[in-house]
Amino acid sequence: MSTLDLSFARALDAQDTLAKYRDEFVITDDALIYLDGNSLGRLPKRTRAILHDALEYQWGERLIRSWGEGWMDASARIGGKIAQLLGAQNDEVIVADSTSVNFYKLVMAALDARPGRRQIVSETLNFPSDTYILQGIARQRGADYFITNVAPSDDLAISTQTVVDAIDPAQCALVTLTHTAFKSGAVYDMQAITAAAQRAGALVLWDLSHSVGSIPIHLNACNADLAVGCTYKYLNGGPGAPAFLYVRRALQNELLNPIQGWFSQQNQFVMDFEYAPAAGMARFLVGSPPLLSMLAIEAGVDLILEAGIENLRAKSLAQSAYMIALYDAWLKPFGVTLNSPRDPAQRGSHVSFGHPDGWRINRALIEDMNVIPDFRPPDNIRCGITPLYTTFTDIYNAMARLRQTLQEKLYEKYPHARPAVT
Amino acid sequence: MSTLDLSFARALDAQDTLAKYRDEFVITDDALIYLDGNSLGRLPKRTRAILHDALEYQWGERLIRSWGEGWMDASARIGGKIAQLLGAQNDEVIVADSTSVNFYKLVMAALDARPGRRQIVSETLNFPSDTYILQGIARQRGADYFITNVAPSDDLAISTQTVVDAIDPAQCALVTLTHTAFKSGAVYDMQAITAAAQRAGALVLWDLSHSVGSIPIHLNACNADLAVGCTYKYLNGGPGAPAFLYVRRALQNELLNPIQGWFSQQNQFVMDFEYAPAAGMARFLVGSPPLLSMLAIEAGVDLILEAGIENLRAKSLAQSAYMIALYDAWLKPFGVTLNSPRDPAQRGSHVSFGHPDGWRINRALIEDMNVIPDFRPPDNIRCGITPLYTTFTDIYNAMARLRQTLQEKLYEKYPHARPAVT
Repeated sequence: MSTLDLSFARALDAQDTLAKYRDEFVITDDALIYLDGNSLGRLPKRTRAILHDALEYQWGERLIRSWGEGWMDASARIGGKIAQLLGAQNDEVIVADSTSVNFYKLVMAALDARPGRRQIVSETLNFPSDTYILQGIARQRGADYFITNVAPSDDLAISTQTVVDAIDPAQCALVTLTHTAFKSGAVYDMQAITAAAQRAGALVLWDLSHSVGSIPIHLNACNADLAVGCTYKYLNGGPGAPAFLYVRRALQNELLNPIQGWFSQQNQFVMDFEYAPAAGMARFLVGSPPLLSMLAIEAGVDLILEAGIENLRAKSLAQSAYMIALYDAWLKPFGVTLNSPRDPAQRGSHVSFGHPDGWRINRALIEDMNVIPDFRPPDNIRCGITPLYTTFTDIYNAMARLRQTLQEKLYEKYPHARPAVT
Repeated sequence: MSTLDLSFARALDAQDTLAKYRDEFVITDDALIYLDGNSLGRLPKRTRAILHDALEYQWGERLIRSWGEGWMDASARIGGKIAQLLGAQNDEVIVADSTSVNFYKLVMAALDARPGRRQIVSETLNFPSDTYILQGIARQRGADYFITNVAPSDDLAISTQTVVDAIDPAQCALVTLTHTAFKSGAVYDMQAITAAAQRAGALVLWDLSHSVGSIPIHLNACNADLAVGCTYKYLNGGPGAPAFLYVRRALQNELLNPIQGWFSQQNQFVMDFEYAPAAGMARFLVGSPPLLSMLAIEAGVDLILEAGIENLRAKSLAQSAYMIALYDAWLKPFGVTLNSPRDPAQRGSHVSFGHPDGWRINRALIEDMNVIPDFRPPDNIRCGITPLYTTFTDIYNAMARLRQTLQEKLYEKYPHARPAVT
């Protein structure tokens, strides 16, 4: 039996101890191959009951009383579960706002905590939202602030040394990186970079959006200072679900939230006139959280905890290795490049394939082949693997359909690029 | 028939042309008198179908494709409907983030747009979250920024002249007030204060949280610059539902969002490295909105548009006047004070009653009398009137139960104050 036979994929599925989790998700079209769980995870069946209760009982019947019956604690409670996936303590993580708002809060807090230092180290392949927010903060804080963006040598992984070399020991206030790169899926060495930043007197802020729920994370073991991340990708929390943020316990009462809304106030309902920050993670809250979207997060987190992040990582690596093996055999001859690391230790849970016609090929896969990857400029067809519901047969069929699309040039009827919107 | 007879209330309900809207809401306990729709509005029945479709079809079946099939436009689309309640153009309002985050964005943007000016005018009875955020912004921006908080003479309405007198024509950058005060329900004169601020060269930012959906608002007619507000009170958008923000059209391309996440970027999905703000209201977005909570807003807004804000206002005023008449007859003898304006033109849609034992009385109403008002320090029992579903009989019964609570001192078994939480 060759690895290039469908029977091989089926055999792998038959041995897969995590296969049963696929049945935990709503799947209306079994023929659709969904490789975009790293943009929007699927709907867990258990979420239906959670939302039904939130709607009918908590909102409809208990009304305002629900604030005292679970809503007030939801940020910390769900955050505590996510903490288990981050290698953090349960009082170090809360759920609030969007990833971008949380990123802003923690960058501002970090810069305030390092007065006199003016350098922020980031990278050219950081997620655009983080990059834009850093640019905005530098603008607001004045011309003496500057961002050093390290660039990768090969568009894939950026060496730890490149980051370390960029840190100015006298000026660096903050090093902030996306732990798993959103295009290539390359993963940084959290331990080494955290240590280097801290040796220079800087704080470190990790964006874990493409890591959480897909690879084991060890914030405490790495002594990481700060982190943010989203819940609608591998955590299957639902479209635009609120994000999480982490602050190392020893830093919590030292940092200040720049958006100090009433949910960050000590004794919030006393409604004192003068602001006094709450102790612990509560000080990084702002206003009322969107409860329906927040409560919907929990089922997806529970599923990952039940399956076990180490088990999911093992399956994810087996699946991405299998995808790369099929790429070598089927796609490389068409000039497709592998835009993700071959080294499994450096690879997250998605694999990107490069082609000058990437945008059109991606369209053809979605419109004609019932495969949903994602496109990321300039040329990446990004294939997300979600081991909770992605099968080896999915990977086989996706790669076979991608090969057919290239072979028959099915993409030529589509425009060369996404139409510009102003 | 005396106004103090139940039959009078019933007669008013029988004549009420808006009475049919009560049936649009989920009401599981018809005996419960809910006077907290100004904290959390009731669940509209239509919201069930919206959320079912969002969950099963949009998330469950269409998955990531839903971003192009309605999600991407939801902020502006629902914002456009809310604009009709604000007296604004549909391209002047979007839904995003929480009220507090939006407030922060617009205060920062306004201060940046008035360089060299250092004064912010607010008031001591502003909603605490706004007050705290202003204090945080003043801290961040340096010691030369200062907040002038005007104080009311009688704890109810603050005279327009008091605000106008506080504006320093050389220094004032921003005047920001809660349009309808959260404790007393007193309403500011938007037109006069906006004009005074603008004459001094300042911008004006209105917090409309207790106004939207309860009283007619005329942002354009008043030439108001900026506004924010929440959707979970009179709009019945659901717990913690995302908030709205308004920027006068002529200012939109002049102001900058301090939290310039990727949803505020021109051509967001091109993912350029350099930030370039989108035109129009999109530049005040930040990250992915919480879709389940956001989509749930729409049914409540539709109901208000159908009923007509002028009709709702007329009923609200009739109901608050009726409540005050019952207060005069039944509660005043117990030393209860009226903490809301008697002048209907100065009154929003809630009425606050003051009593030194306010906290305990509020507890007794909730625990023993099946009436849910809200308590606001130091002594306010706040009774919200939501004319979409509050009946005159509700008001009669609530006041009768409040009288009984006072008469029989039913509150004495409860503690004197909310237990402190640190």
